[in-house]
Amino acid sequence: MKEFKVIERFFTGRGQNRRDVVVNIGDDCALVAPAENKSLAISCDTLVENTHFYPDIPPKALGYKCLAVNLSDLASMGAEPAWMTLALTLPDVDEAWLAEFSQGLSDIAEYYGVSLIGGDTTRGPRSITITVHGQVPEQKAMTRDGARNGDWIYVTGTLGDSAVGLKLIAGELDCDISAEAKHYLINRHYYPSPRVLAGQSLRNLASSAIDISDGILGDIKHVLKRSEVGAVINVEQLPLSDELVNAVGQEQAINYALSGGEDYELLFTVPESQRGALETTLAHAGVSFTQIGQICTGDKLKLLRNGDSFAPTNLAFEHFS
Amino acid sequence: MKEFKVIERFFTGRGQNRRDVVVNIGDDCALVAPAENKSLAISCDTLVENTHFYPDIPPKALGYKCLAVNLSDLASMGAEPAWMTLALTLPDVDEAWLAEFSQGLSDIAEYYGVSLIGGDTTRGPRSITITVHGQVPEQKAMTRDGARNGDWIYVTGTLGDSAVGLKLIAGELDCDISAEAKHYLINRHYYPSPRVLAGQSLRNLASSAIDISDGILGDIKHVLKRSEVGAVINVEQLPLSDELVNAVGQEQAINYALSGGEDYELLFTVPESQRGALETTLAHAGVSFTQIGQICTGDKLKLLRNGDSFAPTNLAFEHFS
Repeated sequence: MKEFKVIERFFTGRGQNRRDVVVNIGDDCALVAPAENKSLAISCDTLVENTHFYPDIPPKALGYKCLAVNLSDLASMGAEPAWMTLALTLPDVDEAWLAEFSQGLSDIAEYYGVSLIGGDTTRGPRSITITVHGQVPEQKAMTRDGARNGDWIYVTGTLGDSAVGLKLIAGELDCDISAEAKHYLINRHYYPSPRVLAGQSLRNLASSAIDISDGILGDIKHVLKRSEVGAVINVEQLPLSDELVNAVGQEQAINYALSGGEDYELLFTVPESQRGALETTLAHAGVSFTQIGQICTGDKLKLLRNGDSFAPTNLAFEHFS
Repeated sequence: MKEFKVIERFFTGRGQNRRDVVVNIGDDCALVAPAENKSLAISCDTLVENTHFYPDIPPKALGYKCLAVNLSDLASMGAEPAWMTLALTLPDVDEAWLAEFSQGLSDIAEYYGVSLIGGDTTRGPRSITITVHGQVPEQKAMTRDGARNGDWIYVTGTLGDSAVGLKLIAGELDCDISAEAKHYLINRHYYPSPRVLAGQSLRNLASSAIDISDGILGDIKHVLKRSEVGAVINVEQLPLSDELVNAVGQEQAINYALSGGEDYELLFTVPESQRGALETTLAHAGVSFTQIGQICTGDKLKLLRNGDSFAPTNLAFEHFS
């Protein structure tokens, strides 16, 4: 099957049919009409077989996830998703695989209003690069450099589930939990929920935001560095799912929450003056959120547990990177 | 070396420093400010080792070429280049290789005014995906569907050089030409010239345009299909370089010109009424152009040589795809 046949059959017209797409797949470039008075947010992520996913990942999960991780970047800026390009490299043309992959990708694209406007299919070791485009009102994007002394630190959802889900997928974790609980943890790895609506809701409240892809310990450092501040995190406040705690116990759950990675939740900071508005605003976004600490002066990250200094255990855990 | 170190050291700030970049590399997304009253042209191409290039390709050539092939897509729509994202997958961090690759990419990015605004570096089998963004006045983009009966067919530059250059690189062609001639042909493969300025100049003249990546025989069919027309090409009018003819002879040169691929020249159609303006317009773009045939009714592509039917020889030539 030739390249353009693959595109025609499995990808043309996928995702949302948007009126701002002037020329769709099938010409040398796609042409789109950016909205007026908005900035364009652009992000690009690659998933490589054996680096980011196992060869036997369900193709539907892979199709979903490769867009989800990109949408998470848009979410952290507060941008509204619009268009994507897909670069798909495959060792062979497996029609059953392509149909499932394409379905997973279409499902999430339609849900978040993303139109697939172009791409490239090539032969080679399996990998997927998506470049996603979103729009955000001028001057309203959340960035990593706005955290200030005294701002409160929040995260959406729960942390650590995805990393334990991966352990279960790899068969590296033996635990006595229900099939439903295992399914939940595995799905948190395969089908992360990009916090797109929450991100947009936070635009007028948060002083900074970042999505959690490497674990909060790693990701918050980007905020601290760019904002030139320090932070205190109270690990007893980390939001942990019951499934996670049941699977690995409270102590390990904290470690997974700190540095497991691939949560694709948002970490954001909110000035004291905006805390009142936060609850109302995020209620509409349908996502839980938890205060886990506070920004301080300096440039250090301090972990506390019930007021005492806390040192995370080395998980000896090589998450996909 | 960690991902962000690679980006910081080799890629941040590369290409042109553009004033419409609001947030550059270093946040979750890049933020740019699209121009008013312009459409955004977006294209994405992947080059995979052993599929599109040999492992021993000079890294500087690879860095140059992976942007050049994308810019060629913008050129064919008449768009002005603006921003790019780079997804770079590498088996290891080879600093000397990265320095050269980055130099080749920067050279062409600066020349064409492209800013590198984001990307992803990952570990895996070597491949490069660039998504390039350009801008074109609303309603002015050239597409594949505008060719009409009677329009004249033109190409820029010369055809076939790149495919023979690749044969020389692969050591699959033994010919008695000068070192300079070999160098010319090889450079046409490694350093194709995207016809960016020509594409912009043609916006008000050409009825359709496409860039020649698979050879004109393959590429013109996209124009014929989308425009619902046929065409006659006079093969004796194909523009051939002296180096090409000296390397493989007149007969084979025609075959390479027809289906060698990777020329990255433009093929475009011009109505009779616009032919007068063409010479003046393209003179400013500094590129030669040659009339090679005419659009006709029907849906067939007819090849003639001095008025007689012409059948191309099967080159038994598997060009990179």
